[in-house]
Amino acid sequence: MKNDNDLFLRACRGERGSRPPVWLMRQAGRYLPEYREVRKKVDFLTLCRTPELAAQVTIQPIDRLGVDAAILFSDILVPAPAMGLNLDFNPGPVVDPPVRSADDVARLVVPEIEQEVPFVYETIRILRRELAGRVPLIGFAAAPFTLAAYLVEGEGSRSFGQWKRMLYGAPEVAEALLDKTTETTIRYLVAQVRAGAQAIQLFDTWAGLVSAEDYAAFSLPYVKRVLTAVRAEGVPTIYFALNAAHAAHEVATCGADVLGADWRTPLSGAHPLQGNLDPCVLLADVATVRRRTLAMLQDGAGLPGHIANLGHGIFPETPVDNAIAFVETVKSFRG
Amino acid sequence: MKNDNDLFLRACRGERGSRPPVWLMRQAGRYLPEYREVRKKVDFLTLCRTPELAAQVTIQPIDRLGVDAAILFSDILVPAPAMGLNLDFNPGPVVDPPVRSADDVARLVVPEIEQEVPFVYETIRILRRELAGRVPLIGFAAAPFTLAAYLVEGEGSRSFGQWKRMLYGAPEVAEALLDKTTETTIRYLVAQVRAGAQAIQLFDTWAGLVSAEDYAAFSLPYVKRVLTAVRAEGVPTIYFALNAAHAAHEVATCGADVLGADWRTPLSGAHPLQGNLDPCVLLADVATVRRRTLAMLQDGAGLPGHIANLGHGIFPETPVDNAIAFVETVKSFRG
Repeated sequence: MKNDNDLFLRACRGERGSRPPVWLMRQAGRYLPEYREVRKKVDFLTLCRTPELAAQVTIQPIDRLGVDAAILFSDILVPAPAMGLNLDFNPGPVVDPPVRSADDVARLVVPEIEQEVPFVYETIRILRRELAGRVPLIGFAAAPFTLAAYLVEGEGSRSFGQWKRMLYGAPEVAEALLDKTTETTIRYLVAQVRAGAQAIQLFDTWAGLVSAEDYAAFSLPYVKRVLTAVRAEGVPTIYFALNAAHAAHEVATCGADVLGADWRTPLSGAHPLQGNLDPCVLLADVATVRRRTLAMLQDGAGLPGHIANLGHGIFPETPVDNAIAFVETVKSFRG
Repeated sequence: MKNDNDLFLRACRGERGSRPPVWLMRQAGRYLPEYREVRKKVDFLTLCRTPELAAQVTIQPIDRLGVDAAILFSDILVPAPAMGLNLDFNPGPVVDPPVRSADDVARLVVPEIEQEVPFVYETIRILRRELAGRVPLIGFAAAPFTLAAYLVEGEGSRSFGQWKRMLYGAPEVAEALLDKTTETTIRYLVAQVRAGAQAIQLFDTWAGLVSAEDYAAFSLPYVKRVLTAVRAEGVPTIYFALNAAHAAHEVATCGADVLGADWRTPLSGAHPLQGNLDPCVLLADVATVRRRTLAMLQDGAGLPGHIANLGHGIFPETPVDNAIAFVETVKSFRG
């Protein structure tokens, strides 16, 4: 099925169109009243696991904001139960029991993923049908390092001390775990592409917590394995390592078609980049949103490809008008 | 009074001694049983405000770990009440009411600091007497940007959305606030030096939350003003901007004698550096602490001056033996 709007897919290939494509990380979310309506009826995990509802909220920002791509509504920890762990949201993710030892790692399952999370693939099939080529659909997963970080820590954390204790003190256990999160992620993403995802984003939210040297040892090789497998399926890949400007040199070697950039990473270099407005800008007024979005677009105008986006997920308290102003500013830009 | 141990002060001047000096950020703290004993009797703020007790806990790590410098036991928000705000710890800092508008900023007082926080200066005088030249005493404060971030946000935060909303949307209000935090910080630190502090560290804990361009606009000029005023008092200055590797070029122009580095910032360059072991290393085992500390020392051996330290404050759950292993590894190093 041909896409009526191929700005996003062309930018992934490094082609510059009449303007940059635009979407927002976490664009299906609590800042939208229509999303909050759906969430009144079901909890977050149930929403992820109910294909009709997940497809419905995926499409909400396409209708409301007019963005150029849809992204599967799900969570990066959705594969955790398939690996044999309990998952809850309270409101942040809680993985139980946390993975702390070689025995814990040995017990983890590399799942038959399509049997374990069939709702993900059903959501994708519904979305391709309902989107009907209006905009392309992005699938996603956590990078192996970030998934492992959550499995070890058991919850979000400022410092991820448990995960780092394993990385620094028992690297062979961490590597065994990373092998399992890598293999799981490959299966998870390849099946997303086969179900209909037209591009894949890999979120390495916690990659920036370690030095460039540790990043090169414990994240990058696993990212490369995932990206190689996904690219072999014929879709473009986006790799987003948050807060990793200090490891920019290593990140640039990962093999993704597009690199995600947060607001600390300049929009310059030889790769197509996606980003990078600080989502806190959308907490200010419309004039500020326009001014800072325009500055971002001008910075991105020299790139071999620029996908306009935020540098991190949109905040729940964002006024919808500011999200609209962001998208409209990109759509009226001729750079 | 001459210091028996001048390794730290000499490293601040860029002189290499027989080995790097060593101390730990937050070395007086909950990981020490003798500190927890004192805290059983008083709450955190009372401890900061009681000179005899603050001096006692300042000296504990000198005795227990054998570090080469003492740092005043206090908190970077101690000046907030002197500016007209309420301060509590619960357990993180809570500033009330948060500063959100031009009117709020106008109401803030630039205090007669020695009258408002006399306990800080009394603690310093006691410490100089009790240390008796055993090791030098470091005074400290928050950088103007970081102090302003807390005053606006009202508490710690992952994203500091309120502060950024002001920075991005009402920069003239932010600048008026930064002028007041700068002037307060200058008075606060100059008085620390006059009371006896022999070096000053400026903590810019939240500088890394913004882009290099915003850092250059909203933090760096104020840091320069503070450092100029403190250096005129004749003591060395250390400036520590956490997670600011992306703004390393700008940070390097601040005018400090020593730059603090976290574990994301390589120990290289033309400045004396202080750092940079990830404090999470001290959550692992003694062998890991020794191995990673040695690697850090080897990285720092090419610097024009290296002060061995962590890249952030030591965690409360750190085993004391690991802190001792860190210090001992530095003290037995001949680089």
